Amino acid sequence: MANFLYRRQFTIQWAHCDPAGIVFNSRFFEFFDWSTWSLFEAALGVRPPDLAGVFGIAGLPLVDASARFIAPARFGDVVELVSQVIAFRRSSFDVEHKLTIGGELAVEGLETRVWAGRDPANPSQIKGQPIPPEVIARFRPL
Amino acid sequence: MANFLYRRQFTIQWAHCDPAGIVFNSRFFEFFDWSTWSLFEAALGVRPPDLAGVFGIAGLPLVDASARFIAPARFGDVVELVSQVIAFRRSSFDVEHKLTIGGELAVEGLETRVWAGRDPANPSQIKGQPIPPEVIARFRPL
Amino acid sequence: MANFLYRRQFTIQWAHCDPAGIVFNSRFFEFFDWSTWSLFEAALGVRPPDLAGVFGIAGLPLVDASARFIAPARFGDVVELVSQVIAFRRSSFDVEHKLTIGGELAVEGLETRVWAGRDPANPSQIKGQPIPPEVIARFRPL
Amino acid sequence: MANFLYRRQFTIQWAHCDPAGIVFNSRFFEFFDWSTWSLFEAALGVRPPDLAGVFGIAGLPLVDASARFIAPARFGDVVELVSQVIAFRRSSFDVEHKLTIGGELAVEGLETRVWAGRDPANPSQIKGQPIPPEVIARFRPL
Repeated sequence: MANFLYRRQFTIQWAHCDPAGIVFNSRFFEFFDWSTWSLFEAALGVRPPDLAGVFGIAGLPLVDASARFIAPARFGDVVELVSQVIAFRRSSFDVEHKLTIGGELAVEGLETRVWAGRDPANPSQIKGQPIPPEVIARFRPL
Repeated sequence: MANFLYRRQFTIQWAHCDPAGIVFNSRFFEFFDWSTWSLFEAALGVRPPDLAGVFGIAGLPLVDASARFIAPARFGDVVELVSQVIAFRRSSFDVEHKLTIGGELAVEGLETRVWAGRDPANPSQIKGQPIPPEVIARFRPL
Repeated sequence: MANFLYRRQFTIQWAHCDPAGIVFNSRFFEFFDWSTWSLFEAALGVRPPDLAGVFGIAGLPLVDASARFIAPARFGDVVELVSQVIAFRRSSFDVEHKLTIGGELAVEGLETRVWAGRDPANPSQIKGQPIPPEVIARFRPL
Repeated sequence: MANFLYRRQFTIQWAHCDPAGIVFNSRFFEFFDWSTWSLFEAALGVRPPDLAGVFGIAGLPLVDASARFIAPARFGDVVELVSQVIAFRRSSFDVEHKLTIGGELAVEGLETRVWAGRDPANPSQIKGQPIPPEVIARFRPL
């Protein structure tokens, strides 16, 4: 059973790069966030700003993020970022991101996020909620 | 009559700089925003996240921003940013920012912001409101 | 005689937005920078990282940047950014950027940049150089 | 034997925060990078832009970065970030970052970096070099 994949190709901008001429590490976490929203939009057919309303959640807060930097990405490089949910648990899930340049893996990322609603006991707080099975099913389409 | 000034000294970080080894232009607009909040905190004695609540406004949205880049700022440079409101109008005002390095002017910025509340006719919109005279008085203390 | 235009359509990301739910002002200056590089690539047929080498320059440093914020851009908005060089002088030029949402002007930007080479008298410094007429001609193609 | 610690206190800015009103995740990786440079400056007595020259290295490139988000940081929060090298290996090391708000742990970060020089076989590449014992000794001062 294959996971639903989201692929994006884009070009590294001057503003992404540091004095070493390579993408500054924090930018990759922006790229990952952007692709997670797009992955959910592609899988669920819901625009990112409508996601919370449609599913009655407060958001998909990040609890863990990591990246492994294997090769540098430079100004003008055309990169491909492929993202997929590799694990669903009761109320959290893991998104894997692989960024390649010319087919070679350059950066690997992992995000752990929570399917979070308002805490009924304290609406100023958020709390993990069970991920609906019909949501999970959309990420395992085959 | 001298204006109230807010001065901040800080060091240019690696993350602020681009492949030319100098601060990327958008970062200066972050520095300006940060100093405008701090200037208001210093003049009014109200923490930035409390500003809207204390004064019954929705915020201080920016309507114009500009910068003139006279000399580059580099990684490790200790810079000084001096900010002041140079003009108050009925519901808008201009904040001037001067960034110096070793006493030499490197960047000049100007922000025009609105003292904005919710529009009674359409609460999803914001609308300029008269700036209270007691607010203006705090920026012209001498 | 029409100017050469560069158009880009893109979607506002979560990471671009601030607690007011709208794009934070410094991000527009990133968008402008990105489109200026792309405009030069489209007009001159030279990849951005090759621009300096092909034309024997050190870069296109910014000396002035400004923006007028007319309407907010929000998470998920599809925006169009249209960029053109509106004036060439001996060694500097002005790039105008217009960002629209649903056809309505939301942000107007202006960058003044220098066609800069190494200063022969002091190679650690850069200095404006005459913009080659064949470069200018590519931005006024019609 | 206690590690050398670098502590920084700073205030969360508007520009750091996203539409949920909390610091966007990529900003923490900027905070970590900034504190790693400052930790090295404090331990070694060398200004960050001089570090490469003084030690004959090309830099301290990041090979792994991760963060665990335990509690949100909000606009105006005064945070403390404490950083230390928790492991030195032959040519790489781990920097731990703990960000607290009011004494409560909010974010934990870990960076793995390389003590990297130019590769003699290919000067366009960088390569790990043995970390000098006198460098390591400065991070274990007690």
